[in-house]
Amino acid sequence: MSTADFPQSEFEARLERAQKAMAGQNLDALFFTTEAEMRYFTGYRTLFWESPTRPWFLIVPKAGKPIAIIPEIGAALMGETWLDDIRTWLSPAETDDGVQLLIDALGACSNVGMLMGRESNLRMPLLDYQRLRAALGATAFEDATPLMQALRMVKSDAEIEIITKICQIAGKSFASAGTLFHLGQPLNEVFRAFRIDLLQQGAENVPYLVGGADTDGYTDVISPPNNKPLAAGDVLMLDTGATLQGYFCDFDRNFAFGHASDAAKYAYQTLYRATDAALATARPGITCKDLHSVMQAVIAQQGNGEGNEGGGDVGRYGHGLGLQLTEAPSLISFDETILKPGMVITLEPSMTVIGDKIMVHEENMVIRDDSAELLTPRAAPELPIL
Amino acid sequence: MSTADFPQSEFEARLERAQKAMAGQNLDALFFTTEAEMRYFTGYRTLFWESPTRPWFLIVPKAGKPIAIIPEIGAALMGETWLDDIRTWLSPAETDDGVQLLIDALGACSNVGMLMGRESNLRMPLLDYQRLRAALGATAFEDATPLMQALRMVKSDAEIEIITKICQIAGKSFASAGTLFHLGQPLNEVFRAFRIDLLQQGAENVPYLVGGADTDGYTDVISPPNNKPLAAGDVLMLDTGATLQGYFCDFDRNFAFGHASDAAKYAYQTLYRATDAALATARPGITCKDLHSVMQAVIAQQGNGEGNEGGGDVGRYGHGLGLQLTEAPSLISFDETILKPGMVITLEPSMTVIGDKIMVHEENMVIRDDSAELLTPRAAPELPIL
Repeated sequence: MSTADFPQSEFEARLERAQKAMAGQNLDALFFTTEAEMRYFTGYRTLFWESPTRPWFLIVPKAGKPIAIIPEIGAALMGETWLDDIRTWLSPAETDDGVQLLIDALGACSNVGMLMGRESNLRMPLLDYQRLRAALGATAFEDATPLMQALRMVKSDAEIEIITKICQIAGKSFASAGTLFHLGQPLNEVFRAFRIDLLQQGAENVPYLVGGADTDGYTDVISPPNNKPLAAGDVLMLDTGATLQGYFCDFDRNFAFGHASDAAKYAYQTLYRATDAALATARPGITCKDLHSVMQAVIAQQGNGEGNEGGGDVGRYGHGLGLQLTEAPSLISFDETILKPGMVITLEPSMTVIGDKIMVHEENMVIRDDSAELLTPRAAPELPIL
Repeated sequence: MSTADFPQSEFEARLERAQKAMAGQNLDALFFTTEAEMRYFTGYRTLFWESPTRPWFLIVPKAGKPIAIIPEIGAALMGETWLDDIRTWLSPAETDDGVQLLIDALGACSNVGMLMGRESNLRMPLLDYQRLRAALGATAFEDATPLMQALRMVKSDAEIEIITKICQIAGKSFASAGTLFHLGQPLNEVFRAFRIDLLQQGAENVPYLVGGADTDGYTDVISPPNNKPLAAGDVLMLDTGATLQGYFCDFDRNFAFGHASDAAKYAYQTLYRATDAALATARPGITCKDLHSVMQAVIAQQGNGEGNEGGGDVGRYGHGLGLQLTEAPSLISFDETILKPGMVITLEPSMTVIGDKIMVHEENMVIRDDSAELLTPRAAPELPIL
């Protein structure tokens, strides 16, 4: 049985880029505790990360293949990857959940890079991490977040192909909105119908589905559904992170029911124009803050005096995506990341519609040699009324 | 709009138990970075945790309601919870993603408890955590993992009711196996059909679905599906963590197709008896290691000389569940946790069938005043052949 999502050459290329970057930072090894990085370098894919019980570790040495230090329960599946060096222990363990294996593996290193910066977390117990650091007192640990983000931001053709597929799948489900959703349908049933349709269209899973529905707009963009029936004048927004081979799409669509207010129509058009402006601008050499500015300019210009020029409280107008629902970079005023071919990024402008109601649009694109290519079927130019 | 899963009294009771335990450990505050603890104390439920971009913090003071320190994007939804003190910042931030707010909130504390032990992780950047600790040099941070695990292990009636419902929902889907699954069906289509049925039966989401299918058994219990068609003699295992109001069930079922080998039938009966033995033994006062021993004794006694007496490489025979797919305690040789009424635990014995093939059974139970009550519809006593 093989669950390989990519040929070995994909992982060889990732490792080569990583080791080149490590040499530039004088790192002897990279040390990871998190799923995305494990998957990036090994292809090891399992939903078992949902269980917090067992830690999983990966070491990328400055030369040679990555080394997996993992619970025995994962040995068979890891054995199907391209790795040769798989060290296991029976976890959960009474006294040592893999720390001594880490000490042995990293003991000879002078400089170890790990994720310590923006968007990172430590997926191992702090006490175990402190024990590791104490045992490796002579080893310097430094932040490798910028290094890893730079690697992961630029997707391979094989990655872009998978992301394109899941965008198309979710696009088909959104295109079925007229048959899936109807006036009087409770919002939680809207979510259920959409999840089922995504799976039927070919999504592997739907780890992320949020949204809202209310008159003119919605009050936030991260809620689970309540059981309120869709009413005339409601604007429904669904934002989905569905997956294929563990890669995400991340985009939303807005639909009005029965009729739509002028405020809702106007916000929709404004956000559509902001997205168009970003699509026309995005190309290699442009920075993320540039793209943010381009969208902000449209929203500010079209602002209706309702305080909607600020773009709501989302804080940014898009982000990277791929192995994770959201990844670096951010389309925000302070992100100076320069766009490169292969970057897959969401465009996600938001604004106040009226009062406390907001609206968000989202599309996914890939940066090509001299322009941006949309991966999602473009939203309708006017607010669809179902 | 309200998405409250519980009445306020539920959260008041949780807080009261926590603050009593904090007094016993002389803690001025608990500091959390993780979803389960945020949800436990506030009811704040969103799939937005799927995005690693923004950190979320919760402080439980020794007196008074919890304090949320969260990105502005979560303010509206958090405003629907029972909390009064919600402090926000616009995240992602260029230089300070909430750390100064944490410093201000914790600055007066002498002793702060946080999760540092078994099964815990740190969901904030290490550099930010180090900055926090440096700024609070006079504050002692100590491990509150045992404190929190003891609280969360014992479920309220309201929590047990939700877990019971999702167990019943998944039970209905498993009961439909004969119509959902068939010889020749690729394993990934088996998964898809089961996911869709779970949603149709009433599950909110299916964050976890793993399994395998092969002659006599399967080689691991954490894999995503491949596209191999079900063949005669295969034993299919599906293990699902479906959710309702964010609470998990976690159990599996085994099905043979066409015919089953004696080895597969024998392993099935053995694991069924091991589960029965644990169900008959489980009651307040018994320890987790006792329950492990009871199952291990059945498996060792019935062992067929194929090396299956060890129970495979899973490392334990069950665990707590609730807000998370797996929680403390563990049914393992070294876990001396004493069972108490209200604990919800899986019974998950596993063994080698033959060669590298293993089998796993899993049921969910709640500990009552003088016995265990099964929450899952009990598996068939003999391996079902479809």
